[in-house]
Amino acid sequence: MKIAVDVMGGDFSPMAQVLGAIEASKQRNFCLVLVGDEEQIKSCLPIDIDSTKIEVVNAAEFIDNDESPTLAIRRKKDSSMVKSLNLLRDNEVDGLLSSGSTGALLAGGMLIVKRMVGVQRAALVSIYPTTKGMSIIVDAGANVDTTPNTLLQFALMANIYYKSLFNMPNPRVGLLNIGKERNKGNQLTIETYQLLEKSGLNFIGNIEARDVPFGGADIIVSDGFSGNITLKLTEGMAYAMMNRLKETMNDGIRSKIGALLLKPALKKMIASLDYRDYGAVPLLGLQKPVFKAHGSSDEVAIKNGLLRLVDFIEQDTIEKVKKSIEEDENGV
Amino acid sequence: MKIAVDVMGGDFSPMAQVLGAIEASKQRNFCLVLVGDEEQIKSCLPIDIDSTKIEVVNAAEFIDNDESPTLAIRRKKDSSMVKSLNLLRDNEVDGLLSSGSTGALLAGGMLIVKRMVGVQRAALVSIYPTTKGMSIIVDAGANVDTTPNTLLQFALMANIYYKSLFNMPNPRVGLLNIGKERNKGNQLTIETYQLLEKSGLNFIGNIEARDVPFGGADIIVSDGFSGNITLKLTEGMAYAMMNRLKETMNDGIRSKIGALLLKPALKKMIASLDYRDYGAVPLLGLQKPVFKAHGSSDEVAIKNGLLRLVDFIEQDTIEKVKKSIEEDENGV
Repeated sequence: MKIAVDVMGGDFSPMAQVLGAIEASKQRNFCLVLVGDEEQIKSCLPIDIDSTKIEVVNAAEFIDNDESPTLAIRRKKDSSMVKSLNLLRDNEVDGLLSSGSTGALLAGGMLIVKRMVGVQRAALVSIYPTTKGMSIIVDAGANVDTTPNTLLQFALMANIYYKSLFNMPNPRVGLLNIGKERNKGNQLTIETYQLLEKSGLNFIGNIEARDVPFGGADIIVSDGFSGNITLKLTEGMAYAMMNRLKETMNDGIRSKIGALLLKPALKKMIASLDYRDYGAVPLLGLQKPVFKAHGSSDEVAIKNGLLRLVDFIEQDTIEKVKKSIEEDENGV
Repeated sequence: MKIAVDVMGGDFSPMAQVLGAIEASKQRNFCLVLVGDEEQIKSCLPIDIDSTKIEVVNAAEFIDNDESPTLAIRRKKDSSMVKSLNLLRDNEVDGLLSSGSTGALLAGGMLIVKRMVGVQRAALVSIYPTTKGMSIIVDAGANVDTTPNTLLQFALMANIYYKSLFNMPNPRVGLLNIGKERNKGNQLTIETYQLLEKSGLNFIGNIEARDVPFGGADIIVSDGFSGNITLKLTEGMAYAMMNRLKETMNDGIRSKIGALLLKPALKKMIASLDYRDYGAVPLLGLQKPVFKAHGSSDEVAIKNGLLRLVDFIEQDTIEKVKKSIEEDENGV
């Protein structure tokens, strides 16, 4: 197996990408193609690497977060992202991981790697830690103006992904909405409800936002706008609550001693909110495996993201997703 | 001043409504019309009340939360909500507070009390406690499929309300969105951005959901779908974080002692998240003052909600809102 890593465009690029990738390749024995500024990459490489397993492809430029995604993909032919996507399209590698611009990776995935037959839009998923375990949100922000049928496809694809990621046979699919009743919500959710009901998925109905942090559903189906609001607000609320807690812990000497005693247990709690365990997520609906890591990924996140990508390839998840979409198209 | 209180339809109805209303009327010296099941109301009334200041209007039925709002308003002519709205329409009272179904109150407000001239939709606001102070969200869930122009009106109306509620001259207006840049978001937010920019409001641009709990804007403008998701997820995350914290505090004897020492400071922190200080919020855009209290309101929340309603009437907020909408229509 050979995997391309676009090492540019992250907050700690290329160091975190290079070191994380090498660590992952040691653990699971696959070959690496590191794509980016050759000089920078070489300065990060340890001296004892096995050069039969690691290849470097130079890219003279990279795509920034604030560039227009489609334009950047079309114009920056020599960027690390476009070069990585070309390697994947040309079957030089079996999968690709990037920490660069989400929008550009999605546009590039659609333009270069291409969608599966029958898939309307590629979906971005996100792993969401709850008090019960892990949920996933689809779409996490890539598709903001969408249709009921696209959301149905997202649910079908996320269902396959969830099953293989967590080895769970029948995940509960919930539709993010502002009320539990089937007639609640906006036009999009009311129509999507009817499609999900007939989908053969384990559809448990609407899920209200207040139940999301408690694991009210395993798969949260949403348009990318509300999905992204959900993710970012969760992050904001976690920080805000921790800030309030810190202030509380500085409220007099008595509280300070209490805080000191609680410290080890609090560290454990904070660790349970850590996104880095999952490292990266697939763009679902593309012909080939494209994984997106968080822009702020460190070495551990990149390593874990690549391990998930290896699983994704070994479990042949792409073929399973294709089959699920085909069955739906045939009205099965 | 005379205020009608629809005492039915809340979780603690009519006891909390009756006692909270009496307490408020003592503090601010206004007359009360309690609308609901006469027998139940009378059994809640203290024996020493001043009957020149408190009137009871019997209503044989009430509107449930799961009824279709418009149908319920049209059919249940003898419900406490419809009777209260009729009193307001007929100038028998100067304002109205209800803890009943939000949808029905909104439908009833539009059908019976009517919108201001030029207002497209009535808006529901919600008070949102942040680490910096208080923000308000408009729309909080009443208008799920909406237009840029309606959102502009919501912003204008919320601006007047915020200024009078918090006595702050120039609140920062932010548009809830999935990115800070002006071209980010869905079709609705991209077009709304352009209108807000030209509105004369203190528009600070897009606000991402992660900044909402930190008071990133004083007024958060959003369609009712995302606004409601924001409110309910905030509530869910606060509970989920408190649950995790409780578990953390039971993690061994050391943590338990720490928790004990922290208890008074934690109580203060939880109090700072208390919605009951504000008690109730107006439906903005109606001809007359209609306030909505939370369904789970207790006596304190009802009392505070009524005090806000008295302020709202005394400050002539309705006239100020009307003027703001007219000025916008005239292109000022």
